Amino acid sequence: MTESLLKNKFEFILVEPSHPGNIGATARAIKNMGFQNLSLIKPVDFPNDDAFYRAKGARDILENIKIYDDLSLPLKDATLIFGTSARKRTIPWPTKNSSELSNILKKALESANAKIFFVFGREISGLSNEELQMCDYHIKIPTAEDFSSINLSHAVQIISYVLKMEIDNIDSLPKINDESTTFQDNEYLIDHFDKVMKQIDFYDQENPKQVKTRMRRLVKRLKPDKLEMGILRGFLAKVEQILNKKN
Amino acid sequence: MTESLLKNKFEFILVEPSHPGNIGATARAIKNMGFQNLSLIKPVDFPNDDAFYRAKGARDILENIKIYDDLSLPLKDATLIFGTSARKRTIPWPTKNSSELSNILKKALESANAKIFFVFGREISGLSNEELQMCDYHIKIPTAEDFSSINLSHAVQIISYVLKMEIDNIDSLPKINDESTTFQDNEYLIDHFDKVMKQIDFYDQENPKQVKTRMRRLVKRLKPDKLEMGILRGFLAKVEQILNKKN
Repeated sequence: MTESLLKNKFEFILVEPSHPGNIGATARAIKNMGFQNLSLIKPVDFPNDDAFYRAKGARDILENIKIYDDLSLPLKDATLIFGTSARKRTIPWPTKNSSELSNILKKALESANAKIFFVFGREISGLSNEELQMCDYHIKIPTAEDFSSINLSHAVQIISYVLKMEIDNIDSLPKINDESTTFQDNEYLIDHFDKVMKQIDFYDQENPKQVKTRMRRLVKRLKPDKLEMGILRGFLAKVEQILNKKN
Repeated sequence: MTESLLKNKFEFILVEPSHPGNIGATARAIKNMGFQNLSLIKPVDFPNDDAFYRAKGARDILENIKIYDDLSLPLKDATLIFGTSARKRTIPWPTKNSSELSNILKKALESANAKIFFVFGREISGLSNEELQMCDYHIKIPTAEDFSSINLSHAVQIISYVLKMEIDNIDSLPKINDESTTFQDNEYLIDHFDKVMKQIDFYDQENPKQVKTRMRRLVKRLKPDKLEMGILRGFLAKVEQILNKKN
């Protein structure tokens, strides 16, 4: 597997970017680091000349850009999702001494169907809670404490630079084995739990959304493999079958 | 010594930037990483509203910016100078496994008068040969081979991010000892050699500049300390004295 094939497994998403200049500068930033896949969710103003001007030699990235109405759509086949967040609770983006990120990436690249996403929020308000909940990991770029708001395309530049360094430092190419479950597989499992829990009146009437949020977090952390997914889905189907018989 | 005092020892210089937007975005980029000192050499268009717009909350950096006519002027007190270059021969900017940069920085920060400069060239043509020769080290940000031209402010963002990571990872604060020689001290030494070499007709008449360039390179690599500088300058003065007596 060559380096460019490896990099093709990475995708960048901007959620509702306001400034077309930032879209162009982002295209240039990722191409500088050898990446090529860029998607937009409901851009405020695109296509726009300013984007093409700022992209310079990365026009091809803009011409192949994909545009969606909802973040969940491009994520369907994702096997690993990072979301950027400026909030306090998120783990800081790789400190030099930590081998955590490279281990996560190495493991993810072992899947035959690896598709790794980096999701960036709006210039002013970032990602919503709902969007952050779709992600497997939240990342935060370390900054000065009193001035933490990094320009969108500059944030993409830092992340893509760190990614390039990590990929260049993967000494042995990952050995491909099994397929990973995707974002969509996980969503089906969460929905299946939701459906069965409703059927057995498991939800607290006063706060029905909280249990589903907790189940979502649990599934994201668990990252079940294909076999485990089959077991869990089979178990839920069996419970449904018995409930239906009883009614 | 607190972190902000440590960061105050670093200075960023843009040489003849064309686009005021890049100046503003650079101010924001370095402030995001906790730095504050920015200088310009002959900016094409500054002050300019676009610079202030792109700086966002880093207006203070622009208000305190220093502007010079020649790169050698702000470098006078420099104890360590890095110049960015896109040329092939330069050493790539820190690869993850190399501890070279952090060792260079740690050592530089041990000087009571440490002043560490990062010099960035023009958007189109970079730094001239003469400007690169003023630097102690050349750095090159690793990029995709077929698309290596990084936007100026994005290049500053990557370098200042890497610097912040390096500084944050310096576990024990450097212990301050002797003073380092400055850029100006080295220039005096180079000029002194030049003067004496002319006096003894040492120069090749057909290529007089080459010997001075080689002496410059030698002094940059040598990095003499204050004591050694005194010995070399004293030696040259003594040679001059004897030559003058003879005439």
